Amino acid sequence: MNPFPFQRIAIFGPGLLGGSLALACHARHPEVRVRVWGRREAAVRALADAALAELASTDVAAVAEGAELVILCVPVERMAALAAQMAEHLPEQAVVTDVGSVKAMVHEQVASALRGRAHFVGSHPMAGSEQTGFESARADLFEGATCLVTPDPEPPDPSLYEAQVARVAQFWCALGCHVTQLTPAAHDAAVGWISHLPHLLAAALVNTVAERAPDALAFCGPGFRDTTRVAAGPPEMWTGIFTQNRAALRDSTEAMIEKLRDFATLLDGIDESGVRQRLTAAKLVRDRLHKH
Amino acid sequence: MNPFPFQRIAIFGPGLLGGSLALACHARHPEVRVRVWGRREAAVRALADAALAELASTDVAAVAEGAELVILCVPVERMAALAAQMAEHLPEQAVVTDVGSVKAMVHEQVASALRGRAHFVGSHPMAGSEQTGFESARADLFEGATCLVTPDPEPPDPSLYEAQVARVAQFWCALGCHVTQLTPAAHDAAVGWISHLPHLLAAALVNTVAERAPDALAFCGPGFRDTTRVAAGPPEMWTGIFTQNRAALRDSTEAMIEKLRDFATLLDGIDESGVRQRLTAAKLVRDRLHKH
Repeated sequence: MNPFPFQRIAIFGPGLLGGSLALACHARHPEVRVRVWGRREAAVRALADAALAELASTDVAAVAEGAELVILCVPVERMAALAAQMAEHLPEQAVVTDVGSVKAMVHEQVASALRGRAHFVGSHPMAGSEQTGFESARADLFEGATCLVTPDPEPPDPSLYEAQVARVAQFWCALGCHVTQLTPAAHDAAVGWISHLPHLLAAALVNTVAERAPDALAFCGPGFRDTTRVAAGPPEMWTGIFTQNRAALRDSTEAMIEKLRDFATLLDGIDESGVRQRLTAAKLVRDRLHKH
Repeated sequence: MNPFPFQRIAIFGPGLLGGSLALACHARHPEVRVRVWGRREAAVRALADAALAELASTDVAAVAEGAELVILCVPVERMAALAAQMAEHLPEQAVVTDVGSVKAMVHEQVASALRGRAHFVGSHPMAGSEQTGFESARADLFEGATCLVTPDPEPPDPSLYEAQVARVAQFWCALGCHVTQLTPAAHDAAVGWISHLPHLLAAALVNTVAERAPDALAFCGPGFRDTTRVAAGPPEMWTGIFTQNRAALRDSTEAMIEKLRDFATLLDGIDESGVRQRLTAAKLVRDRLHKH
């Protein structure tokens, strides 16, 4: 097992991802001291009841105190305000990371909110589901998942920062992730294609069928269910993600419309060999996707 | 358990669906006499080795002989030729059904190929996966699945035909399906929305990302994998389905393009409440989908 690079960590947000982090740390590295912050008393109590943390509280200062690593597990649009609240309570040399689905804007806002009290290194574990809340959390959620770590391309103190990036990467490795580093901008472009576009498609497909063929929904097979699974994800969180990454998502949506137009043209022309070629190309790529 | 309405059945095509039918009959109704036809010697041998049939053969006449129910489990474009080959070998009053994903054209072609020797009642169990072949077959594939049964709206002998439709429905119920009856045309319209459009989207999404952001494929999470799972399905089979149902698929693709344009407009206008409204509507519908 990989060595754990921090002795005291603080998880802010005890939902699916934050809760799974607490479970994973407890299962793999029970020696690590974990504190958890939640906005709601009830959420915090669930963590405390599960004995996953030495402190589970709604008090930002108490949870931040002494943390060598902070992981922000709240919706992306709330991260900066939370970072501002905790900044003065963090120890020197603390490092702050997150689990958000967009990075460029989070980097900018959180780094500024921390006012030099701690460095920010972005993280995006490609794990999760359409479910939410601690009740859906799993100790093995991160095992075998890719975690994209996004260092600031122009940190104020490059040599110190580099060491902190390495520790954040080591943290994810210690939870079973494969780590890849990308710039925040490259991250946002990539997930615009592989995560945000699929989410937009799933939602648009559900809405299209609900409007145009509502009776057909009763007959859905496993294909429709899998293709649309992510559309059951939390609308508020995804509204924030779409808004923050709207330029990349706009591009990927436009490219998708072009591909659909191409298919429509093939259908109009009864171009069977064109259809076969597109479906064969897709199968080749899909078959090569690494398994989680 | 539901009573089984046939004593002798013949399955043509020992792939994922045909093989699962043989397994399901064997598990639930071991008293039923099952014969299986396959095009390739090796496929037939796998069935024989598993002792799932009293006869597994590449000989159409031998398998058709004495069958009260024939289930065509070959690609839709091959069904008519196979029906023509077996017609003269079927007993009087035999009924022929299938498991194909399109119905109007299959009804027309198969009924004509049978030359009045047997009646055709269409079936489409909404089960299966992107996998193929007997090695992926499962005895429980049909349990809890919806099976759409599509009677001919204008059968030559309505009173006899009605009884045969009822027996076909009973057959699927005896394997654990929920049966719904639709006309062939209504079936094709419905699956154009809930099955063929999702398949086209999955393939188009894979091709879009492979072209525009190939490096991002290495980071895919479970969302992308689920959304694109069906794109790993057999291209040849799906080319046949797309071609036979191209009018319906053309309409559903056009409606989908409109929905994507609407999303693009919201992103251009930074219309957060519009995005939230669309995602919330999709979640409400997706949450209500019956579970399989």
